[in-house]
Amino acid sequence: MAMDKTTQALWLPVTQMKDLEEHPALRICSGKGIYLYDAEGKPYMDAISSWWTNIFGHANPRITRTLAEQAARLEHVMLAGVTHPPAEDLARRLTTLTPDELTRVFFAGDGASAVEIAMKMSYASRRNTGHTEKRRFVGLSGGYHGETLGALSLCGHDAFSDIFRPLMPDNLSVTGPDCYRCPHGKTRNDCDAECFEHMEGALEKHGREVTAVFIEPMAQGAAGWRFYSPRYLRKLRECTRHHDIHLVFDEIAVGFGRLGTMFAMEQAGVTPDFLTLSKSITSGTLPLSVVMTTDAIYEAFLGDFTQMKAFMHSHTYMGNPLACAVANETLSMFEEGNVLETNKPKYRHLANHAALRFADHRHVGEVRSLGFITCVELVSDRATKTPFDWRLRTGFRIFREALKRGVLLRNLGDCLYFLPPYVITQDEITRLVDVAHAAMVEILGE
Amino acid sequence: MAMDKTTQALWLPVTQMKDLEEHPALRICSGKGIYLYDAEGKPYMDAISSWWTNIFGHANPRITRTLAEQAARLEHVMLAGVTHPPAEDLARRLTTLTPDELTRVFFAGDGASAVEIAMKMSYASRRNTGHTEKRRFVGLSGGYHGETLGALSLCGHDAFSDIFRPLMPDNLSVTGPDCYRCPHGKTRNDCDAECFEHMEGALEKHGREVTAVFIEPMAQGAAGWRFYSPRYLRKLRECTRHHDIHLVFDEIAVGFGRLGTMFAMEQAGVTPDFLTLSKSITSGTLPLSVVMTTDAIYEAFLGDFTQMKAFMHSHTYMGNPLACAVANETLSMFEEGNVLETNKPKYRHLANHAALRFADHRHVGEVRSLGFITCVELVSDRATKTPFDWRLRTGFRIFREALKRGVLLRNLGDCLYFLPPYVITQDEITRLVDVAHAAMVEILGE
Repeated sequence: MAMDKTTQALWLPVTQMKDLEEHPALRICSGKGIYLYDAEGKPYMDAISSWWTNIFGHANPRITRTLAEQAARLEHVMLAGVTHPPAEDLARRLTTLTPDELTRVFFAGDGASAVEIAMKMSYASRRNTGHTEKRRFVGLSGGYHGETLGALSLCGHDAFSDIFRPLMPDNLSVTGPDCYRCPHGKTRNDCDAECFEHMEGALEKHGREVTAVFIEPMAQGAAGWRFYSPRYLRKLRECTRHHDIHLVFDEIAVGFGRLGTMFAMEQAGVTPDFLTLSKSITSGTLPLSVVMTTDAIYEAFLGDFTQMKAFMHSHTYMGNPLACAVANETLSMFEEGNVLETNKPKYRHLANHAALRFADHRHVGEVRSLGFITCVELVSDRATKTPFDWRLRTGFRIFREALKRGVLLRNLGDCLYFLPPYVITQDEITRLVDVAHAAMVEILGE
Repeated sequence: MAMDKTTQALWLPVTQMKDLEEHPALRICSGKGIYLYDAEGKPYMDAISSWWTNIFGHANPRITRTLAEQAARLEHVMLAGVTHPPAEDLARRLTTLTPDELTRVFFAGDGASAVEIAMKMSYASRRNTGHTEKRRFVGLSGGYHGETLGALSLCGHDAFSDIFRPLMPDNLSVTGPDCYRCPHGKTRNDCDAECFEHMEGALEKHGREVTAVFIEPMAQGAAGWRFYSPRYLRKLRECTRHHDIHLVFDEIAVGFGRLGTMFAMEQAGVTPDFLTLSKSITSGTLPLSVVMTTDAIYEAFLGDFTQMKAFMHSHTYMGNPLACAVANETLSMFEEGNVLETNKPKYRHLANHAALRFADHRHVGEVRSLGFITCVELVSDRATKTPFDWRLRTGFRIFREALKRGVLLRNLGDCLYFLPPYVITQDEITRLVDVAHAAMVEILGE
């Protein structure tokens, strides 16, 4: 676990590098299935799928073979005015997996770029149709959409975005759902999404100048896996239609089966105007992102060349053949393995066993589950739902403790969560939860 | 060359999709060396290295082997609080290849993300040291730094950015060098970078509020490969020091030998505060980008956790092991093949043969070369340097004509340019130039 001298040049993301003097970075040399191995061969269970990406296990032989075959055929070609079979196939397959209205597929590289593309496409479609007054975007408190400056302006996380406000466009942040601390005293199952009142009010007031609302459907990941009612999304669809506002579903974190359905939007029965995808689209192998949209948006960009209506946006490696080939193989593995069904008993066991282990602890505020994610929110006081002082780094200390025991948890503040690769077994799930529980008890007592 | 029906879902970047009805997209199924092949096996010489990325040829066996080996060992792991040997090695190797002052390496995915990271790092370092008045950025006319909204605000290209101004931060654009149409009547070789007066004036006026200047050293690519004097960069280094402004060299397009030296900045003998790299870093195989910076910047982010000074920015796939492994192999191929020396006779032949073929044509304004790039700027009138009416699409028509003849040129407006993979032979260079010339003559006459 010791940090090698050669890491000195390497500046790690979202990491206070001074911390590494006391808590050296974990050094991973190989992976296999749900395990990552350090230089001494010690295994670490990848409990959060390497930032929510890995679904079919590390060093998956089918993925390796696909990569090698595609690299020997065509590793890359630019996508401007050029197509290639892996991108064509992937585009077609994505349109068959998603609602009929989502007919067009635009590729990018990382998730943030996909979000920026959706922003620019939304606004440019207004400009191309003479509605330039619609130039602002709406995000939700607790929302996360990436950290380039445009995407960051949609995020509702002070830790990421506050200091960069002077550099960002002036977009609107609206109070979103927070079901654990519901101000209406409701639960996810008996509510009518009363908290939508904030959005309704904001769109009533600013709707004329708003071109799009960005939301993570069903679950806000970076906020600590806040799951919320599908009713919120149905109200949002209706309200955005009323005000002629585009609805953007950011499924970068939850697409490809993580919440139980192939896409989260299926649980609300709602179709957005834009859909962004990334992360698990390549089984967690290499970067690829996608923006899907409708014929209505696409047609706003068609015209004679001299009208200058084309959508001007490029990234060098967009539609990279290697990434597209791996994504196609990922979709084949979904089909052949009947993955959504196979996952069900696993994630039910995860939810049940985590509830059994954690729910009664005096510092556990809530154990919540949706699909293949279970989140344990720790609090100082259960009755008042008062958080721990953040400076105590409670979650981080439990993460360090679990790491000693061979489980890589990486907390979100004081939320511990389990988001393992789908290839995990029920026995491994039991062990994962038990180790995390033991780590918590070590830090917080029985 | 016909567009398959299955491409219908695929929306191509910077492409007027209506154009494809008349000019179908090129459909590429495989590649080998400097050639790309369509479904019928027809070869196309990749004259611009698939958007300036490919250097060692398509489907390079060493790259394929490296990818397969790394994928079988560790395809990916998140980089937050975690290191792995390919990222550590690459970080260390990059610091040995660049000036001593550039000691720190921060990974990202695409080029635009690297630029946004440099923006955020520059500003956040001010904030961490109490200088929040420095919050604006300066870019140059003709400059290109990517198309996410922050990066786009630094670009000096109306076609990409004008319509998005309402969404972008309010940064400064300064008139940059344009040596072909030098307003001082000088040439690149006898000038004293008189055109620096614009920058000098802008920084004199706004320097107090400027945190960083972004520039592509030696060559502005998207502007039509405008090469300019290294004196400009020396003046800029001195002037930015004087005003306590960070200097950012964006070598995404030109790093890794394209201009003859490993990095363009070597030709000016100037070291920036930030350096961004991408494109050829993986030999044109898959996306990876890098921000390098100094100890002074790095140290502004060190502190106790509770001081909240850490640099908060992440992309899921930053430091992807596959991409880092391919980048390491790329650097090994540079060393073992003595590439910078081997390239010299090739690009001299490119420059000479292009000058021979093009320079005297009545519609050729300038044939300019630097390292392994030769650019031919077409004009309506040589004497007055008057451009063609852009609606004539002169460059595009020549591109289409060359494509029929098996050369993929992809013009930049009315600039034709040659930027082939380094593995091209002298005979292939001759053929490339001859075909492009024949295509020009077909469109513009003798």
